[in-house]
Amino acid sequence: MLNKELIDLSKEFWENCLPHINVDCVLFGYDKGMLHVLLTKINSQGHHDWFLPGGYIYKDEPIETAATRVLFERTGAENIFLEQFGVFGTVRRSESYFTDYPDDMWHKMRFISVGYYALVRMEDVTIKTDIFSEECKWVEVNKIPALVMDHNTILEKALRTLKEQLSYRPIGLNLLPDEFTMPELQKLYEAVLDKKLNRGNFYRKMIKNNVLISLDKTRTGKAHKAPLLYSFDKDVYTQLQDDILW
Amino acid sequence: MLNKELIDLSKEFWENCLPHINVDCVLFGYDKGMLHVLLTKINSQGHHDWFLPGGYIYKDEPIETAATRVLFERTGAENIFLEQFGVFGTVRRSESYFTDYPDDMWHKMRFISVGYYALVRMEDVTIKTDIFSEECKWVEVNKIPALVMDHNTILEKALRTLKEQLSYRPIGLNLLPDEFTMPELQKLYEAVLDKKLNRGNFYRKMIKNNVLISLDKTRTGKAHKAPLLYSFDKDVYTQLQDDILW
Repeated sequence: MLNKELIDLSKEFWENCLPHINVDCVLFGYDKGMLHVLLTKINSQGHHDWFLPGGYIYKDEPIETAATRVLFERTGAENIFLEQFGVFGTVRRSESYFTDYPDDMWHKMRFISVGYYALVRMEDVTIKTDIFSEECKWVEVNKIPALVMDHNTILEKALRTLKEQLSYRPIGLNLLPDEFTMPELQKLYEAVLDKKLNRGNFYRKMIKNNVLISLDKTRTGKAHKAPLLYSFDKDVYTQLQDDILW
Repeated sequence: MLNKELIDLSKEFWENCLPHINVDCVLFGYDKGMLHVLLTKINSQGHHDWFLPGGYIYKDEPIETAATRVLFERTGAENIFLEQFGVFGTVRRSESYFTDYPDDMWHKMRFISVGYYALVRMEDVTIKTDIFSEECKWVEVNKIPALVMDHNTILEKALRTLKEQLSYRPIGLNLLPDEFTMPELQKLYEAVLDKKLNRGNFYRKMIKNNVLISLDKTRTGKAHKAPLLYSFDKDVYTQLQDDILW
């Protein structure tokens, strides 16, 4: 069974969008120590397939705006931290997926995908399903199902980039609440890196980075044994990159 | 004065290439302690403008192959270390450059540029000028002239990425000769980072990385005071990424 909504949209895309280029978004969401990715399920050609949320680029639209728009449509969130991490341009990566559709369908041409990763606190957003998807939901990063086309490859590259950039981009700033404890910060790092870290080394490294402000209080208001709260020094954190590189 | 070669090529591009997407290459060359970038000068519309070497993508060509092809045409080198580092997709970044040309010229449409950085030892390659450029040459990274369109921005992003990735990608492997001394290695790092590094810290960090093989010899054959030679452990260096991330 073909997806009628997709066919209807095809004409609109031919008129308004740039051919051959699209964006795919890997939206990482963090909540209660777990890293998730936003996936969307589309019923197409009789099977139910999982996709990364993506979209096309209007003829007069900067490419980054297209990615922001896709994420806004799914989450209602503006000013999401967004980072372009890769381009996926092998031949037939996408065009073979739409076999059963008419040959003049927009989606059947060769597309080169530009990947953006983005970061949100899951509690800050409400996920919306759009008209041609059946479902849109957070999936734990360790439980990602088989995705269509090369979307698993795209997701893996995004996760790899997130790990590499964890020490010099303001990733914690965009995933943790305004106030957090050192164990909570460590848990975030462990969730992103998918490995346990030594508590003492972690503490020393974070203090040395100079991005933390100690708030001299605990969450309960009692200092006794409860861990101290910290917040990020936004100016230092967003300008960290130069200092930390050797 | 319009560049006739460009106009002649336009028809060919319309037939054989993907519209709206091109590649631009930032080729870093290293020699005698200095980092350079390959630039090409084109006489167009009466002025002589500096460009990054770039090109279009054939309809049936993987995008990475297009970048490899552009670099091969300029240097004759195959298997160049290549890394995609950014996409440049603001509106009117390129289309306004070709004002004086006919409206149906290929180059006048909106192009989104995919940036690749690449690394070579300068002594390994011979630079070639192509039919529609006047000059093609290495320029020191600190003496880059004003380039056309957003090519300075593209170059800056490439250099930024090179700095960020210096500790976890095999950058030294692709820029240094097979055998080198620790001072030569430090000089490369200083050239990329554009700052002086502490000799003791640098030595400790490199030894800890485990990528160096001490060759137990010096360049003159005499151990007395001459610095020891090292080579890279290619297997460790190319798989370094995971271990070094926290």
